[in-house]
Amino acid sequence: MARIVMKFGGTSVADIERIRNVARHVKRETDAGHEVAVVVSAMAGKTNELVGWAREASPMHDAREYDSIVASGEQVTSGLLAITLQSMSVDARSWLGWQIPIKTDNAHGAARIMDIEGSEMVRRLGIGQVAVVAGFQGIGPDNRIATLGRGGSDTSAVAIAAAIKADRCDIYTDVDGVYTTDPRIEPNARRLNKVSYEEMLEMASLGAKVLQVRSVELAMVHNVRTFVRSSFEAPDAPGMGDFDNPPGTLICDEDEIVEKQIVTGIAYAKDEAQISLRQLDDRPGVSAAIFGPLAEAGINVDMIVQNISGDGKYTDMTFTVPHGDLQKAVALLTESKEKIGFDQVQSEAGLVKVSVIGVGMRSHTGVAATAFKAMAEKGINIRAITTSEIKISILIDGPYAELAVRTLHNVYGLDKA
Amino acid sequence: MARIVMKFGGTSVADIERIRNVARHVKRETDAGHEVAVVVSAMAGKTNELVGWAREASPMHDAREYDSIVASGEQVTSGLLAITLQSMSVDARSWLGWQIPIKTDNAHGAARIMDIEGSEMVRRLGIGQVAVVAGFQGIGPDNRIATLGRGGSDTSAVAIAAAIKADRCDIYTDVDGVYTTDPRIEPNARRLNKVSYEEMLEMASLGAKVLQVRSVELAMVHNVRTFVRSSFEAPDAPGMGDFDNPPGTLICDEDEIVEKQIVTGIAYAKDEAQISLRQLDDRPGVSAAIFGPLAEAGINVDMIVQNISGDGKYTDMTFTVPHGDLQKAVALLTESKEKIGFDQVQSEAGLVKVSVIGVGMRSHTGVAATAFKAMAEKGINIRAITTSEIKISILIDGPYAELAVRTLHNVYGLDKA
Repeated sequence: MARIVMKFGGTSVADIERIRNVARHVKRETDAGHEVAVVVSAMAGKTNELVGWAREASPMHDAREYDSIVASGEQVTSGLLAITLQSMSVDARSWLGWQIPIKTDNAHGAARIMDIEGSEMVRRLGIGQVAVVAGFQGIGPDNRIATLGRGGSDTSAVAIAAAIKADRCDIYTDVDGVYTTDPRIEPNARRLNKVSYEEMLEMASLGAKVLQVRSVELAMVHNVRTFVRSSFEAPDAPGMGDFDNPPGTLICDEDEIVEKQIVTGIAYAKDEAQISLRQLDDRPGVSAAIFGPLAEAGINVDMIVQNISGDGKYTDMTFTVPHGDLQKAVALLTESKEKIGFDQVQSEAGLVKVSVIGVGMRSHTGVAATAFKAMAEKGINIRAITTSEIKISILIDGPYAELAVRTLHNVYGLDKA
Repeated sequence: MARIVMKFGGTSVADIERIRNVARHVKRETDAGHEVAVVVSAMAGKTNELVGWAREASPMHDAREYDSIVASGEQVTSGLLAITLQSMSVDARSWLGWQIPIKTDNAHGAARIMDIEGSEMVRRLGIGQVAVVAGFQGIGPDNRIATLGRGGSDTSAVAIAAAIKADRCDIYTDVDGVYTTDPRIEPNARRLNKVSYEEMLEMASLGAKVLQVRSVELAMVHNVRTFVRSSFEAPDAPGMGDFDNPPGTLICDEDEIVEKQIVTGIAYAKDEAQISLRQLDDRPGVSAAIFGPLAEAGINVDMIVQNISGDGKYTDMTFTVPHGDLQKAVALLTESKEKIGFDQVQSEAGLVKVSVIGVGMRSHTGVAATAFKAMAEKGINIRAITTSEIKISILIDGPYAELAVRTLHNVYGLDKA
């Protein structure tokens, strides 16, 4: 018998028929004797409807009111799933964020979970009651509803799993796991049986939109084994079963992965833009002068490359921002031209960042060289390179994205089981 | 400067444009220097959508889950109105039932308000902040959302007015006040400037659907002067102004009504059905034997007429039930025929109860005689009569409903200003 958290997203609870399907998944686990807490998102489309109304009422709206409005979507789903479970003779009750309570900070609209009081829920799980938790929401120190930001239900699920010391957290989604790369680009992409928290974190933040980044961070910190699987599988399909051949992907500690691959996956992020500052004064504090104002404006700067100054006076600085922020970033930099001290700002949009990810890189050399050689052979120009312990990222021109992903997927043998 | 509660129903907040209109009404009052708490219903249609989903999930659903689901409708509207007010530079915040808190009993789906902790709201009203309260909801002793039943937002508004000692409670609705009778039947019906709590209570429970009965009871108990007016009036129309010539109807204590009419209004209730038990044993306890089982089955018995027994052995008993309950009632009585002891059960559907209402009846005689004479002159057969201190009700055949209403409206001179 295990204690598990199951999380279902908006498309999985889009109407009553799908909610019934979710209930069957839950019943399968309770019938197997497990203690189950379920976390649900709003019905697909509902959050957008609510956000639309809030924007129509006022484009610059109070985040506290926004939170109260949009959190109602998960409130509805949690009640509907509880009713549906009851109709299948499964004891269940809904829990809203303020009822548990899930205590957050005061950052309405993008709140962080500070504490979860799980003791009453654990007591009820113990007597066989399923807890149906409204995801995405908690209660702030101001006694008002606080939401966790888009995709926050994943974070709710992992945080609850940590709070109630669940054996694992099952994330039911519209894909059946985490793949070596995007199967729409590379049909030979394979589902991974296991992936480490660190690798998943890189994949999540690079656009493999299976899990919200924050939820993976939480899973890593609290060592919550998180299992990604499809909600569209028949609910009477076998449960978790054998962890070495599971119907999905287990995100777990590196130590639990016996056969480590050198490279685990290829991720990509589209719509990147590159900004270069030419003839930049090479003096202490110049980086702060550049990136301080961009950070204040909420612009997310990613790859940063600075060449060594040749003459000790001037250097070039290159970095990337999301395409949507390019105009604002260039305008901000141009305003501060005198203060920062540079000759020219150049920019280019329509770029793609492709990343090779794998914890095995730590102990293997030549991984980067393999990537660069493969790119060169296909005639793909590399604009910038950044590396971390478990990741190599290259910035290339947009039209080469698919070719680069497929080439890298192939060169590291990811299509072989 | 006054402290007022303003309540807006579902049609008044059906979309963002209408919510803006509501906000203008509120701003008119705050601009005039008043302290304002606003109570809102769900957007028109939303409650039905939510109820529909709950029924689809399971026809026999847990009332606690139902409450959590449907209360989300008012949660959305309260947030949207707060945002809209803020965008008009009116300081405002939303309040959910559990935040105030509005404490109710545990009767989920039809809960009664037990206590409202209004001190923090009063403090904020004092510094010029508008309180936007989600109607229809409170929190039960089980720490779960409890709803007050259909139309409960009227009750929320009056209860909050009582709790914060408001000078009056303005109910904005889709009619511009309380009329001497239904204007769709009698075009000469006049809007009443004032009506007493007692009279309004009779009118509300008799199908003049302006206000929920429970809210009128509360207004009477706590002496909350309640003002019914139209939300579709231009928001820049004059405010309350002169109480003797107001743009609506004030429901208030009898003592505040200087020029009392003998008869204030004519109400009617359609779809009544009559049940007669013939040759009923005339023994103690027979009424309990009849009405006990009906009450247990949730059947609302209204007019009860028992003739004096001629021979001391048998009598006849006649009473009315709503048409929808007729079949169930007859079946129940037939089952218990032996136990109750009667010869025959007869029933007739399609009847109408017409009532003459007025506090002036207490001190005037002949009011009933006038009604009976007028009915006789029009050839309208009276099937049953019941009277109270301020009301005479007669049961007649359905097709005569409009004729009876118009005749009574005329005979008591209600069409004259």
